[in-house]
Amino acid sequence: MEVQALFSAIRRRERHALAQGITLVESTRSEDRIKADQLLSLVLPYAGNSFRLGISGIPGVGKSTLIEALGGELLRSNPQLQLACLTVDPSSPRNGGSILGDKIRMEELSRHPQAYIRSSPSGGYGGGTAATTQETLLLLEAAGFNLCVIETVGVGQSEIEVSTMVDALLLLLMPHTGDEIQSIKKGLQELAQFIVINKADGELREAAQLTQQRMLSAFKLLAFNGEPLPEVHLCSAQQGSGIENLGRNLIQFSKSQRQSGATAKLRVKQMQQWFAREVSNALSKRFFGEGDNQQRYLQWEAELVAGKLTAGAAARFLFAGHLPPA
Amino acid sequence: MEVQALFSAIRRRERHALAQGITLVESTRSEDRIKADQLLSLVLPYAGNSFRLGISGIPGVGKSTLIEALGGELLRSNPQLQLACLTVDPSSPRNGGSILGDKIRMEELSRHPQAYIRSSPSGGYGGGTAATTQETLLLLEAAGFNLCVIETVGVGQSEIEVSTMVDALLLLLMPHTGDEIQSIKKGLQELAQFIVINKADGELREAAQLTQQRMLSAFKLLAFNGEPLPEVHLCSAQQGSGIENLGRNLIQFSKSQRQSGATAKLRVKQMQQWFAREVSNALSKRFFGEGDNQQRYLQWEAELVAGKLTAGAAARFLFAGHLPPA
Repeated sequence: MEVQALFSAIRRRERHALAQGITLVESTRSEDRIKADQLLSLVLPYAGNSFRLGISGIPGVGKSTLIEALGGELLRSNPQLQLACLTVDPSSPRNGGSILGDKIRMEELSRHPQAYIRSSPSGGYGGGTAATTQETLLLLEAAGFNLCVIETVGVGQSEIEVSTMVDALLLLLMPHTGDEIQSIKKGLQELAQFIVINKADGELREAAQLTQQRMLSAFKLLAFNGEPLPEVHLCSAQQGSGIENLGRNLIQFSKSQRQSGATAKLRVKQMQQWFAREVSNALSKRFFGEGDNQQRYLQWEAELVAGKLTAGAAARFLFAGHLPPA
Repeated sequence: MEVQALFSAIRRRERHALAQGITLVESTRSEDRIKADQLLSLVLPYAGNSFRLGISGIPGVGKSTLIEALGGELLRSNPQLQLACLTVDPSSPRNGGSILGDKIRMEELSRHPQAYIRSSPSGGYGGGTAATTQETLLLLEAAGFNLCVIETVGVGQSEIEVSTMVDALLLLLMPHTGDEIQSIKKGLQELAQFIVINKADGELREAAQLTQQRMLSAFKLLAFNGEPLPEVHLCSAQQGSGIENLGRNLIQFSKSQRQSGATAKLRVKQMQQWFAREVSNALSKRFFGEGDNQQRYLQWEAELVAGKLTAGAAARFLFAGHLPPA
């Protein structure tokens, strides 16, 4: 399909066109890259109008079940909602998912006419790389999706990366497993606006309540300068409890951030960060792709670790094109 | 002085030679840089044998008073100690110091035959830049200083930087001012191995104890996986209370980290980080120094913020040498 036709079909929210567009921005072939840039320049004026929500948690915490339950609830109570979800492909064992496909795990959501689910095997979330996930978001927004969920596997770095592309991050935790404490330690409460303790049912109910209390008291100690702290919710994605309230608060958060101008401000900052990162990555890529720079880097690093010169000198010799003495 | 003679004089711990050597590594003139590299390659085999201690805290918390008291105590109880200290120059108003010089503020220490104090007006700590501070450390170690203290003003970034060049970071706090909580929030407890609440005397004594209790209970909540948490000490640098115990624990920490191999492991990691940073900074510097790249970066950033293209496309156009459409 020609780029202009693809763009029009995406604007009409045609799913095969959307899939084709996403594949295009994920492609690393240079002729695809040119087309992808053309497509992105067409969609940009129509992008930006969604609530971008990251959902993160360790494997097995119930991210898919939550998205299925929360998505269904939000679609019921918000008739204007168009929901898109970029998920980890669970068929990829390194992502720790089940062997069932997302469309089966999110059965109701995947059949809903106002929902679109895109799985990707190739990364911790959504698309191939963090950069293409950003671009995929723009395509989804131009297609009229006003809630874009990006699922990520909670292993530290991925939350930090996803937090630079979403309006809010929801961190899903298990009751009483200690991972709530690790989350605080790693500073995730500064990244997440919503912390949700799942599996608050049956024999884990009490443990979940205890976890909530511990988190709230830790946050109280951490409160400073009136900076906003994350909301801490309990839910059972399986049984559906706590989901309605969570959905209401998410929509409320989205509206108030947008109205106060906080969303617009955050997005400018995110764009600047992304540009700086793209430029820095491109500089590294160009340098390490030239001649034997990669190999010489490792050689100078070994000299440095052996105590033969300083980091500054190693960098200067590397740039001067020198090889370490044999 | 010729580099070889300078090196020999530094090895004999001659103060004027040490001062000259430090000035050399801080210099940005290219002929000085060549000499500095020669000097550093001579000192490297003799460097690495000190306990490197960062001391950080906001202006007015009493860093100089602590260093004076702690340094005096350590010199009394460790006859073999040779103490060097790189400090913020208090005469520079932007560092928030008093108008007295360091040599007056650290009167006893500055006159001690086994202590050396070097102030620098030009940065948050020690030397001109973080990189030259690293190199200055090597000169001090080759001169036989086995305790090197680097004072930094606690404003966030500087602690993070200094933590990548020291074996331990001591964070000095006021009682009951809220900054202990901000420190936790900013993740400094992951950087600092020693947290010291100063001014635990007179009417602030109770507030200091309360602060210590609050920190300890917050840390208890944060404890995870048996990772070591910082020690929390009370002291009055002015009255000298708590200093002896703190000094003993610092020496103990230094010994156990060195014996377990933790120090050696940490320093390899720090060298690799510094090399990566030097290379990345050099790549940026080279790029932004070429032609109109700096100006074009800002122009493409403005286009990006205006929503006219994506960060990836802006980076590609920047590298392709394009100017944004007028």
